[in-house]
Amino acid sequence: MSREMLTIDGLQYSNWSRDIFEQMREGGLDAVHATLVYHETTRETLSRLGEWNRRFEAHADLIIPVHQPSDIARARSSGRIGVFLGAQNCSPIEDDIDMVEVMRDLGLMIMQLTYNNQSLLACGCYEAEDSGITRFGRQVIREMNRVGMVIDMSHSAERSTLEAIELSSRPVIISHANPATFHPAKRNKSDKVLKAIAECNGLLGFSAYPFHLRNGPDCTLTEYCEMIARTADLMGVEHLAIGTDLCQNQPTSVLDWMRNGRWSKDMDYGEGSASNAGWPRPLTWLKDSRDLPNLIQGLRNVGMNEDEVAGIMGCNWVALLERSATPQASNTDWAA
Amino acid sequence: MSREMLTIDGLQYSNWSRDIFEQMREGGLDAVHATLVYHETTRETLSRLGEWNRRFEAHADLIIPVHQPSDIARARSSGRIGVFLGAQNCSPIEDDIDMVEVMRDLGLMIMQLTYNNQSLLACGCYEAEDSGITRFGRQVIREMNRVGMVIDMSHSAERSTLEAIELSSRPVIISHANPATFHPAKRNKSDKVLKAIAECNGLLGFSAYPFHLRNGPDCTLTEYCEMIARTADLMGVEHLAIGTDLCQNQPTSVLDWMRNGRWSKDMDYGEGSASNAGWPRPLTWLKDSRDLPNLIQGLRNVGMNEDEVAGIMGCNWVALLERSATPQASNTDWAA
Repeated sequence: MSREMLTIDGLQYSNWSRDIFEQMREGGLDAVHATLVYHETTRETLSRLGEWNRRFEAHADLIIPVHQPSDIARARSSGRIGVFLGAQNCSPIEDDIDMVEVMRDLGLMIMQLTYNNQSLLACGCYEAEDSGITRFGRQVIREMNRVGMVIDMSHSAERSTLEAIELSSRPVIISHANPATFHPAKRNKSDKVLKAIAECNGLLGFSAYPFHLRNGPDCTLTEYCEMIARTADLMGVEHLAIGTDLCQNQPTSVLDWMRNGRWSKDMDYGEGSASNAGWPRPLTWLKDSRDLPNLIQGLRNVGMNEDEVAGIMGCNWVALLERSATPQASNTDWAA
Repeated sequence: MSREMLTIDGLQYSNWSRDIFEQMREGGLDAVHATLVYHETTRETLSRLGEWNRRFEAHADLIIPVHQPSDIARARSSGRIGVFLGAQNCSPIEDDIDMVEVMRDLGLMIMQLTYNNQSLLACGCYEAEDSGITRFGRQVIREMNRVGMVIDMSHSAERSTLEAIELSSRPVIISHANPATFHPAKRNKSDKVLKAIAECNGLLGFSAYPFHLRNGPDCTLTEYCEMIARTADLMGVEHLAIGTDLCQNQPTSVLDWMRNGRWSKDMDYGEGSASNAGWPRPLTWLKDSRDLPNLIQGLRNVGMNEDEVAGIMGCNWVALLERSATPQASNTDWAA
């Protein structure tokens, strides 16, 4: 039986504005995983949440917060875009295990354990070596499992990713990356990692950030959708989704913040280089959320049936959140 | 030629009071490396500094701040105890390279790169594995070298310690630990590490914390001083000093803070255990600073000459600070 089409973008970090929310509606977006922070401390994260509260107030006709998976259906039935928030780094909890539940109570549904560099929890994909999940990291994984905060390993290194999957009692995701076999970027993932994500009943969101694509900004829609079809053979189509990594209208100062945070006196160019320091040229077939229907057609064109397309475009995200972003059945599990 | 006797304790973290400062004077202490913080954030570190400012004001007849190595001679000539501050973890700089210079400007002369656990800079001695100095850690080492903040690897793991020594252009220290050959504790150091500390012209402060000693609280003064004499053969006597790790009058809540910070929901017993959770029983020959002259006599009794004793008791600390805690000769070194 074919499910109703649902469109969820599993990662965006735009310079949010009414124009962008209107583009989302025009593109048929039902919900979006919006990045709340990159390197912000606990206190700074509260200010970013405050900014979202203002947006929810100012644009209440267009957007509505998603704190539980079921809120996505409520958003859809009210004709609005549900926004669920995620952190690209563990900076919001600083060194404090108690901040996991506090942040979840405030609506942080997803958190990456690392962003490129070593964190207090795990290792990022830009470090020379990865010694896996730390002592603090083990406790945080258990606590995220308990309160229903989804573990995202998009920017983590391989060993840390595999260990997080092993340690977590709930599915782990990669919200925005591609198979390394498609394009061998540091941020893309080996088949070993992708299989482990599928085996834990997790999710991979395919990135449309040009640095993660074969031929960069010249990657075609067909190449992108063929990559998805091939990955379905590896992971099972129910574990696939979209995480465009759209960063609209952001100044390069935001790119510098993502790459350098406060940790580097030298300029770190991340996936770019000194001669290619800015934002990559956007894809012609995915300039903003209005182009999301291109993906629906592209997936059909590579032979996906309607149920598979509905899963990849959004239903798989809802199912994942139901598995990973709800409170754990019983707190007695904690003592077990 | 024999140097004048000088007494410096290279690590204390007591529940500071006028009584304790008076004990220091009675014991002939000229200067002390006082731990400022264990896990405190940047903001919390400022409050700890504020508390020291109050102490310097209230007990100006007994103690005086040391911000530069030459301040120790000034303290001595005014008959007061010089206090130089150090952090046992890198938490005061959080994720911010700029905080290294800010903290140095405020008088933080020494900083450990880790405290038992993985930090953003390096790996602690309680983690299962050590992948060495991180990307951020490399920048922090360079910045500490530049501003003259001493790198202390007392609670770090072996590989991180060796890499820090390799990366640092200035001597690295272990302010409070003992040779693992004397007592095989996680916190004690291999001969490989001790030799590397000596080769970089650094310093080892011998700990008198019972968990770091053979026979624990029953370790005798003679055993302790014989350990020092044997280490002189390995490292050269000019690289040896005292770092008692005296923690006077601290409630067990402080021990819990050291061991658990905010990172653990489970109780972590550190060097202790569930059945031995509290502070260790103190040494009979080193209950507080009034007993420091026992060390002078103990070192003489194992055959050290007066110059060697003066070095270990304090002069080697002054020389180390002159090598490592002064601003780098020229800021143009940074660009080199």
